[in-house]
Amino acid sequence: MRILNEGKRVRVGDYAFGDGACYVIAGPCAIESRDQILKIAVEAKDKGAHLLRGGIFKPRTSPYDFQGLGLEGLKHMLEAKALTGMPIVTELMDASHLDVFVEHVDLIQIGSRNMYNYSLLKALGETRKPILLKRGFSATIKEWLYAAEHIAKGGNDQIILCERGIRSFDTYTRNVLDLTAVPIMQAETGLPVVVDPSHGTGLRHLVPIMSKGAAAVGADGLLIETHYDPEASVSDKDQTITLDALAGICEHIKNVR
Amino acid sequence: MRILNEGKRVRVGDYAFGDGACYVIAGPCAIESRDQILKIAVEAKDKGAHLLRGGIFKPRTSPYDFQGLGLEGLKHMLEAKALTGMPIVTELMDASHLDVFVEHVDLIQIGSRNMYNYSLLKALGETRKPILLKRGFSATIKEWLYAAEHIAKGGNDQIILCERGIRSFDTYTRNVLDLTAVPIMQAETGLPVVVDPSHGTGLRHLVPIMSKGAAAVGADGLLIETHYDPEASVSDKDQTITLDALAGICEHIKNVR
Amino acid sequence: MRILNEGKRVRVGDYAFGDGACYVIAGPCAIESRDQILKIAVEAKDKGAHLLRGGIFKPRTSPYDFQGLGLEGLKHMLEAKALTGMPIVTELMDASHLDVFVEHVDLIQIGSRNMYNYSLLKALGETRKPILLKRGFSATIKEWLYAAEHIAKGGNDQIILCERGIRSFDTYTRNVLDLTAVPIMQAETGLPVVVDPSHGTGLRHLVPIMSKGAAAVGADGLLIETHYDPEASVSDKDQTITLDALAGICEHIKNVR
Amino acid sequence: MRILNEGKRVRVGDYAFGDGACYVIAGPCAIESRDQILKIAVEAKDKGAHLLRGGIFKPRTSPYDFQGLGLEGLKHMLEAKALTGMPIVTELMDASHLDVFVEHVDLIQIGSRNMYNYSLLKALGETRKPILLKRGFSATIKEWLYAAEHIAKGGNDQIILCERGIRSFDTYTRNVLDLTAVPIMQAETGLPVVVDPSHGTGLRHLVPIMSKGAAAVGADGLLIETHYDPEASVSDKDQTITLDALAGICEHIKNVR
Repeated sequence: MRILNEGKRVRVGDYAFGDGACYVIAGPCAIESRDQILKIAVEAKDKGAHLLRGGIFKPRTSPYDFQGLGLEGLKHMLEAKALTGMPIVTELMDASHLDVFVEHVDLIQIGSRNMYNYSLLKALGETRKPILLKRGFSATIKEWLYAAEHIAKGGNDQIILCERGIRSFDTYTRNVLDLTAVPIMQAETGLPVVVDPSHGTGLRHLVPIMSKGAAAVGADGLLIETHYDPEASVSDKDQTITLDALAGICEHIKNVR
Repeated sequence: MRILNEGKRVRVGDYAFGDGACYVIAGPCAIESRDQILKIAVEAKDKGAHLLRGGIFKPRTSPYDFQGLGLEGLKHMLEAKALTGMPIVTELMDASHLDVFVEHVDLIQIGSRNMYNYSLLKALGETRKPILLKRGFSATIKEWLYAAEHIAKGGNDQIILCERGIRSFDTYTRNVLDLTAVPIMQAETGLPVVVDPSHGTGLRHLVPIMSKGAAAVGADGLLIETHYDPEASVSDKDQTITLDALAGICEHIKNVR
Repeated sequence: MRILNEGKRVRVGDYAFGDGACYVIAGPCAIESRDQILKIAVEAKDKGAHLLRGGIFKPRTSPYDFQGLGLEGLKHMLEAKALTGMPIVTELMDASHLDVFVEHVDLIQIGSRNMYNYSLLKALGETRKPILLKRGFSATIKEWLYAAEHIAKGGNDQIILCERGIRSFDTYTRNVLDLTAVPIMQAETGLPVVVDPSHGTGLRHLVPIMSKGAAAVGADGLLIETHYDPEASVSDKDQTITLDALAGICEHIKNVR
Repeated sequence: MRILNEGKRVRVGDYAFGDGACYVIAGPCAIESRDQILKIAVEAKDKGAHLLRGGIFKPRTSPYDFQGLGLEGLKHMLEAKALTGMPIVTELMDASHLDVFVEHVDLIQIGSRNMYNYSLLKALGETRKPILLKRGFSATIKEWLYAAEHIAKGGNDQIILCERGIRSFDTYTRNVLDLTAVPIMQAETGLPVVVDPSHGTGLRHLVPIMSKGAAAVGADGLLIETHYDPEASVSDKDQTITLDALAGICEHIKNVR
């Protein structure tokens, strides 16, 4: 095993995940237009967020739903990065885009659905890019740990783990946010662990309080879906918060760390 | 519905659950002897715990495991109460003991297995005693809420809810501690909600960090299995913490509230 | 352990569960009126059913829903028994009714919610009545086995187990019918195992096909919610089948055994 | 939606899945050597199996476990096909092997871990090859249905679905075999549905009885891990049956259809 019990820091832009800070990664579920992402980036930066997230390829349950702007969306993100200086985070779904991502994306996200896509993980292991590896929505601790190992085996240990809620028998929340996984995975892997309270709850009003919980159990960062007009989001609108709510979370994080 | 959206306080001894404080309920999984509970009570009080817990009737998966000291155990608890002034919390399993419990127990616990025991809940609704209602280990938010309503319908709204972890597909932890349930149930019922990180994780070393998480999401109290010699506990030893660990939790709670 | 690996037969009226036959227990979810149960009993008997089921005390998630006719309903069932000769099966929720049930009910059902109600199981262990022990909806194989042992420890091994579906992450069906539990529990306990495809699926049109599946894996019986007018049932109407559908199931069972 | 409610037949070699027969797909978990697969193929054919399965690329939780023989293994399978005339089934994990699979494999399996790998499903949609789409181990009915739609959208509706058990809270069996999914998916999609009782139970002695259950609920086929020396299998040995046990299953299927 390559990832074992020694605290590792993963550098993305000027930030070193794992250094004791709690970094906030904010942005919309999906990049919808140039204007949308520029506006969100400027405001999120102003509110205290550190990195910019946004989906350009969207894995959707139905193939007939909006699938993202694709590489066109990446251009908009790069413009937002140039404007704000924020490192960008976006999800890779297909190995055929790997080279473009390696060249332009600061932190490559592997979504929950692809945590078991070992071919893709192996390809990422050959790069030296930081990876944000989300937990599969029914992945055991052991499976998640080994998914990271599928990347690390190739020599790339620049991995940030992301707890994003697991599937349960209840339908009140979209998922059950498993905050206990934060200290467990930190101890088992030595890697930084961030928390996604947006997918973890699926409900906007629960995002701020669960962000506090995540910070209290030692999360190295937060991944938060944010929009200037959450109700107008093309996807995941129920769990997307306003920029004002984001400001409150950033303020809280600053005070407790 | 009788319990709806208005903040309620539940008074147990000198403490008013729901007043913004986070009360610590500590003690062994099971009362094992007079000496054991007296010793734990004195030390737990000294470390900062507010109420004393301990099982006298133990619901065990196997009928051949230790079933508790029964009413003999209650006598020891009352002695511990007299010695320390701590209100006592213990689990009721059988309606035939209801009168004794109403007379002597300060906070009557209904365990996870009996959350669906509607006959027992109904009987408690006829009393005016404070009830600690644990969530069933696979109970939905709605079922848990309605279980409280089974009590409240009889006129007793002195109910404290307890999140204690839910069952999942993973075996790393004993249960998945669902901290999101704390703000949800507070909002849905107006009742105080406490957290049991002992059963919620099943692992001693995770109890302090998850207690912090519970406090951060607004828990009104903590229920923590504690023993002067955890390894010697007759049941649940893996999740029982030392009195020193308890002191650390009480100290943290005092600082953040 | 008292129940171990030797094939046991449980006699209810003229039928010996565990003798290789597959007995059909049919009737409405709840006894709604004298006319209703008499009409269903006569027709169910005519279609080939062996025992008559019907709830008189109904455990309902909400205390404000219909709770059953109570002992009044038992009188109607006894009249239906006198009329048709069918042994009767109904659920016990409260130890205070135990004596009445022991006197009048042929097969005492313990519902899914009370599988962990060890006080009630213990009381049943003191009787010599046949018990129909449903699996808790999130009970492991081991917990279910030990629940039977809670009864058997008192000396009563007249236990028929009932698989009725377990809780999962999906909402398409009400539960996931775990047919593999049939051969497992038969082998682990030596007791007869019946299947409840009504609760196991929650959907009327799936009841006949899953009854065939149950028979194929060796079920010793079927528990089926049946009504002359399913849509008019006061509870569980979506999973209640017509008497004609019941006839088809009984016919199939007769042909394959 | 392209796949809707009309019975479709999927032809693989001489067999038309969906024609009312129940086809048996047998073979080892992994191709271990030329001798191994030739020996199993000849004997499985002799016992009554219709198609030959075997893994050449193995998705393993740990990257340090045996990963399969790769394309070398495919050569052995093709030799086994030439020898016995059995169509071959093997799992595709990586789009880079798609052309080789399209040329040589008769039925391309997508494993449980890749059911959400939409890039891979989309690529398969562009081919006209029959696909065996396994259910994700925590996939809802709706997600599974839409995964098929990700393939069908490209114009390829030659899809056979495979129920292989879902994840639950219990550890007695490896998964919970959800036989109810068979009639549900047949009705929802019109596609043939086969059952994998090997992964569905994880326990060798349960495979024959659950194969009977699968046949009884209308499965269009069975996928069964078989080895001449199950205990010597390099993977999944606990769920691999002998060729004699396979013979018993084939015999039963022949008699009931």
